[in-house]
Amino acid sequence: MAIITVVGAGMMGSAMAFPACRNRHSVRLVGSPLDREIIEHGKRTGDHLTLCHDVKGVRTSFHMPEGVSFHQYEELADCIRDADLLICGVSSFGLEWFCENVIPVIPESLPVLSITKGMIDDGECKGNLISYPEYMLRFTDKKLKINAVGGPCTSYELADLDPTEVTFCGPDIKLLRFIRSLFETDFYHVSLSTDVRGVECAVALKNAYALGVSLAIGMSYRREGRVFEHYNSQAALFGQASKEMARLLALLGGLHDSIYLGIGDLYVTVFGGRTRRIGTLLGEGKHFDEAMAILRGVTLESIVIARRTADALLQMTKDGRAKKEDFPLLMHIRELLVDNAEVNIPWQAFETETIR
Amino acid sequence: MAIITVVGAGMMGSAMAFPACRNRHSVRLVGSPLDREIIEHGKRTGDHLTLCHDVKGVRTSFHMPEGVSFHQYEELADCIRDADLLICGVSSFGLEWFCENVIPVIPESLPVLSITKGMIDDGECKGNLISYPEYMLRFTDKKLKINAVGGPCTSYELADLDPTEVTFCGPDIKLLRFIRSLFETDFYHVSLSTDVRGVECAVALKNAYALGVSLAIGMSYRREGRVFEHYNSQAALFGQASKEMARLLALLGGLHDSIYLGIGDLYVTVFGGRTRRIGTLLGEGKHFDEAMAILRGVTLESIVIARRTADALLQMTKDGRAKKEDFPLLMHIRELLVDNAEVNIPWQAFETETIR
Repeated sequence: MAIITVVGAGMMGSAMAFPACRNRHSVRLVGSPLDREIIEHGKRTGDHLTLCHDVKGVRTSFHMPEGVSFHQYEELADCIRDADLLICGVSSFGLEWFCENVIPVIPESLPVLSITKGMIDDGECKGNLISYPEYMLRFTDKKLKINAVGGPCTSYELADLDPTEVTFCGPDIKLLRFIRSLFETDFYHVSLSTDVRGVECAVALKNAYALGVSLAIGMSYRREGRVFEHYNSQAALFGQASKEMARLLALLGGLHDSIYLGIGDLYVTVFGGRTRRIGTLLGEGKHFDEAMAILRGVTLESIVIARRTADALLQMTKDGRAKKEDFPLLMHIRELLVDNAEVNIPWQAFETETIR
Repeated sequence: MAIITVVGAGMMGSAMAFPACRNRHSVRLVGSPLDREIIEHGKRTGDHLTLCHDVKGVRTSFHMPEGVSFHQYEELADCIRDADLLICGVSSFGLEWFCENVIPVIPESLPVLSITKGMIDDGECKGNLISYPEYMLRFTDKKLKINAVGGPCTSYELADLDPTEVTFCGPDIKLLRFIRSLFETDFYHVSLSTDVRGVECAVALKNAYALGVSLAIGMSYRREGRVFEHYNSQAALFGQASKEMARLLALLGGLHDSIYLGIGDLYVTVFGGRTRRIGTLLGEGKHFDEAMAILRGVTLESIVIARRTADALLQMTKDGRAKKEDFPLLMHIRELLVDNAEVNIPWQAFETETIR
């Protein structure tokens, strides 16, 4: 049986223990310096402090499965030594920390699977976004084997064993097959792809667009009160979002078929929590600064990714690689997030004439 | 101001009066012989008997907007004579009736907009599906100008003025622009496309796949009771559905970009009512005959379209145009509907290896 070391004890990294332990592997959950309380609580109770499910309004912690052990950051070196796989389990906000502190101690022989979703400027500020696995490799001269997870999967539903289908991506299909063998269960299904850029960008893009689709929820609340949820307007935005995501994916150099991961991920994110909450508030007519004040204390990776994507697109329009009018929804999302504008969906800009 | 005659006083045909009357056009709602009660009720009260909204469990009829008049079928000829547009407002089940009884009395000068969504075998039973506008033209030697509506739009939400974005398709872009001018409002946005096959097939395909996505709702209920709705499994099926729909669209000869309409329509249909109900029951482990017994009296266009699509695909696999393994979700939907099988999502068949 394999040893899997997860660095970063947040919700998603920790949830990966559920399929791994179902397959009888050992999972060492190593907290970052910010996770001290999670690890201490886990050592004492076996429960996860932040991986919770809302049952009729009551937050219930998940008990971690048999095979999981909890470790403070100081034990990292011991936890890595004989591991078969290292999972990068930090959020976007912890990525720099991971690159500076963990990457240096990973041996070349130890494959990495990253659950951190996102894209980042390649450093030249010309609108070229790269995937996180590509970014991580820039921190080292070692030939690390960095793979990543894409596709729709919320952590607490994975812990609930709701079936899901994700994609592992990385440069080496044989290594990907090995990693899949560790996690594949009857509730965790894994496709493989060597299109790292495409998979990672597709699932990062959904951050911006899930916020966009959620605007319709707030707009409907504002118009008719919170009795109703309307789906026509959500569906119109969902279709537009899918179309813009496919265009962005092509601009960023991903394979077209990776879009279906992004679409599935968009679906789950619209129903998934924090991004939906901010989108709904903006849709109700709140300005971004008001909405953020209401959600104080909530970390929103999606906002960071949405801004990065919109800024990159703006760069690409400046040198003629992209046209603003092909991305009216993203441009409006940018107005909301960057210019603090009030919601005003550019419906007419979505209209097209197709002549075959 | 224009005169728009709607034949078939069902929910969707009738809801088209809301954008039309907002633009101050006259709408004549002509019932089919099955709509006598709707028309009588409308003449008496101005309310629509079946176009309703559920408000906290109470069904509330919509009052039709100013500009609508109600007419029994016998008044059809009078209602057509000076009309500027005829809307075919019947469901799939009324299509034959429309083709045999209404098409013969439509003059070539009167453009038609059909809201009936679906596809049908071209008559040779070789797996070639054609769109309804193409099918309707086979009933006449006249050069009728038949256009159609695609895209996400549920009738009662349109009547609620929730913003939506649809696509009008037909062979003549200038005529499409005229029809758009009748309906375009701040809550009804219209794209245009001459890709009739693509638009109509994309939005017909969602019938089968909305049932497929809804299976996950029932599966989650069955596992954990009706407290929970899980989205990971819905999202996995939504992504797979999008992928299979795009493949089918290509096989059927539609433009790829029409898929985004189908995806938006899939989204709204998963939340839209009857198709969701049958999918949920099947997902809970009911056999199709049991589920239909529970939903007695409900007409399910989606079931008809789903079967037709699945049967056509099976035909296409026989002569090598398509491969079964590219459509595992649709093939399972066929097992449920045709073979009365129990739900058993072929998750592993969804797994792919992509090497770039």
